[in-house]
Amino acid sequence: EFEIAWDASAAEKGGWPTFMKKEISEEPEAVGKTLIGRIVDGAVHLPELESFDGLLTDIDRIVVLACGTAAYASLVGKYAIESWARIPVDVELSHEFHYRDPVIGERTLVVSVSQSGETMDTLLAVQYAKKHGARTLSICNTQGATIPRESDAVLYTHAGPEVAVASTKAFVAQITALYLLGLHLATIRGTLDAPAVSALVEELQNLPAKLDQVVETSGERIADFARWMGDVQSVLFLGRHAGYPIALEGALKLKELAYIHAEGFAAGELKHGPIALIEPGQLVIVIVPSPRDPNSLHPKVISNIQEIRARGARVIAVAEIGDVEVLPFADEVIRIPLAGPLFEPLLAVVPLHVFAMELATAKGLDVDQPRNLAKSVTVE
Amino acid sequence: EFEIAWDASAAEKGGWPTFMKKEISEEPEAVGKTLIGRIVDGAVHLPELESFDGLLTDIDRIVVLACGTAAYASLVGKYAIESWARIPVDVELSHEFHYRDPVIGERTLVVSVSQSGETMDTLLAVQYAKKHGARTLSICNTQGATIPRESDAVLYTHAGPEVAVASTKAFVAQITALYLLGLHLATIRGTLDAPAVSALVEELQNLPAKLDQVVETSGERIADFARWMGDVQSVLFLGRHAGYPIALEGALKLKELAYIHAEGFAAGELKHGPIALIEPGQLVIVIVPSPRDPNSLHPKVISNIQEIRARGARVIAVAEIGDVEVLPFADEVIRIPLAGPLFEPLLAVVPLHVFAMELATAKGLDVDQPRNLAKSVTVE
Repeated sequence: EFEIAWDASAAEKGGWPTFMKKEISEEPEAVGKTLIGRIVDGAVHLPELESFDGLLTDIDRIVVLACGTAAYASLVGKYAIESWARIPVDVELSHEFHYRDPVIGERTLVVSVSQSGETMDTLLAVQYAKKHGARTLSICNTQGATIPRESDAVLYTHAGPEVAVASTKAFVAQITALYLLGLHLATIRGTLDAPAVSALVEELQNLPAKLDQVVETSGERIADFARWMGDVQSVLFLGRHAGYPIALEGALKLKELAYIHAEGFAAGELKHGPIALIEPGQLVIVIVPSPRDPNSLHPKVISNIQEIRARGARVIAVAEIGDVEVLPFADEVIRIPLAGPLFEPLLAVVPLHVFAMELATAKGLDVDQPRNLAKSVTVE
Repeated sequence: EFEIAWDASAAEKGGWPTFMKKEISEEPEAVGKTLIGRIVDGAVHLPELESFDGLLTDIDRIVVLACGTAAYASLVGKYAIESWARIPVDVELSHEFHYRDPVIGERTLVVSVSQSGETMDTLLAVQYAKKHGARTLSICNTQGATIPRESDAVLYTHAGPEVAVASTKAFVAQITALYLLGLHLATIRGTLDAPAVSALVEELQNLPAKLDQVVETSGERIADFARWMGDVQSVLFLGRHAGYPIALEGALKLKELAYIHAEGFAAGELKHGPIALIEPGQLVIVIVPSPRDPNSLHPKVISNIQEIRARGARVIAVAEIGDVEVLPFADEVIRIPLAGPLFEPLLAVVPLHVFAMELATAKGLDVDQPRNLAKSVTVE
């Protein structure tokens, strides 16, 4: 007779050392599953929004309500929805929104983004918006949660259960859902023609395979250099365009997991103040946009990198495969596959998730249960 | 025969040790002068905007373009304008705005905020907005600068020449101008009646005297405790409602002048991530709203303070005179005079300006000329 030491938690992790590591490896699948059934013949198919269709041609403004990491996913969504559907999008922190007598009209669509669907701040903001006449759409990862039940319609993300406190796969699934919404709006409002939608849909469909590539190639590399960075005191993240919210997300993860003072900036903001922080040795992680686009911000970001390097910063660049111009200016380059300008951010975020996890691990911290934080913030 | 050692710079400073100290002392006057001639019989009088009047009743959205500290002044303005004139206001970083194909309609008013009127990022964004059919209003401190010349109308702030690189008196003057705009819009759009406007105008007119009081009382006190804080590694700033952009401004000043990693948050955001940073000794500066307003966020901010104190944070509170509830929870309390919810932030920012200046001074740094920064960013 013998006993088997059985660890339920280890079993749930399916062999992974932490839930976070498992969930980062599921980022490709989270995007893929959120697309399933929603693309038909190169067009976006969202029966969930049928009850809205009159409204969706008529709205003149979208307000997105979210907190924390979901607010950064929403900011990425803003860039895409405005560009494709030509509707102004405001991303509002839920807890600020309903305490400040905001302007909501009958032509405002209010979209809430919450993984758990139980975020109290966001629930209160949605209830406020409803009371003031807005139509509400919930983007949520949890079937039957409170926020979707209280909303006029729901677009579920299908990231699967997320256990680690810091959101990873739900984050990319939220962006995917917002992109589907943007393409749907662009279609019914006629701001993009069918071939344009089809090309963008194809980019979306290609994401899971590209994300797989990022997950596979970035892990060991980043673990290596995270190991000698355990004593880093602060990290700055820079991005532009849809890479700007990714910089915010990278910084938030580092705060949450590694307890390091990290802040994300729109790279253009540097010279308006934050560049004063740059001194020899300061670690800066830069999301570099592709140089292939004719309107690319690549030269401007390279110029930002030169400015901070001249002041002694150590630079880790996240740049697409084949971008050789970045090489002379970066201490480390993490490569991501080629994608369109609005799709790169979804690839660039994975190395930042890995970096925060590895740095926290190097510091001996519990990456699944960071101090002071709860998975769903169900109190105000 | 003897020589007089004459220091032109010292003469310009009129006896003050630094331009920044001089300019903080001029914050009351900057607000006062920006109001001169613009209030007649308790109503706002802005002949500068006459050419707009048809437009101002018709607009359905305001986009404010700014960078750095001016963007935080704009965020304060957003809270007031939305509340008073019931128009949605988007504050956009200039350098992000014109690179992302933003949505601008003929019913959009584009307001730019720049002290120098030469900020290249903002100039380019204004030119982009004009090209796409928007009407443009410049809020500017420098007569005849490029941005006002390229705009359809100008509302000058009258802060006087600002020499220190980090903006102080121009910041409060910018908020004042945005408030005048908000009250003007509320009047012509009929969202506030004459007595309501008159009461708010009175609050504006009372600001210079209250600001004088803050300048006089906070200086020595803050210098005292800044002196033993020279070695602080990072500072967090928390605010809610219009105090949230003030937290952002306080953090930016500390970055710019004292080269300290400082970040501002909406206090409601704490539990969605940043609270992980709180460990024993972490310095947190909290803008506490007045408890007098029936919808005051005071209890929520007190509860935030309790949460971070329970985790060992050192708390400096900026709170109104007579708020005794904050006393058990703060290591230091800086007092500001009583004002309405949208006017408190203008008072609360002064101690933060003083704090950044004194901390930089305690560290032996040049507060007028911080490293890496230029007064006007006239390159992209």
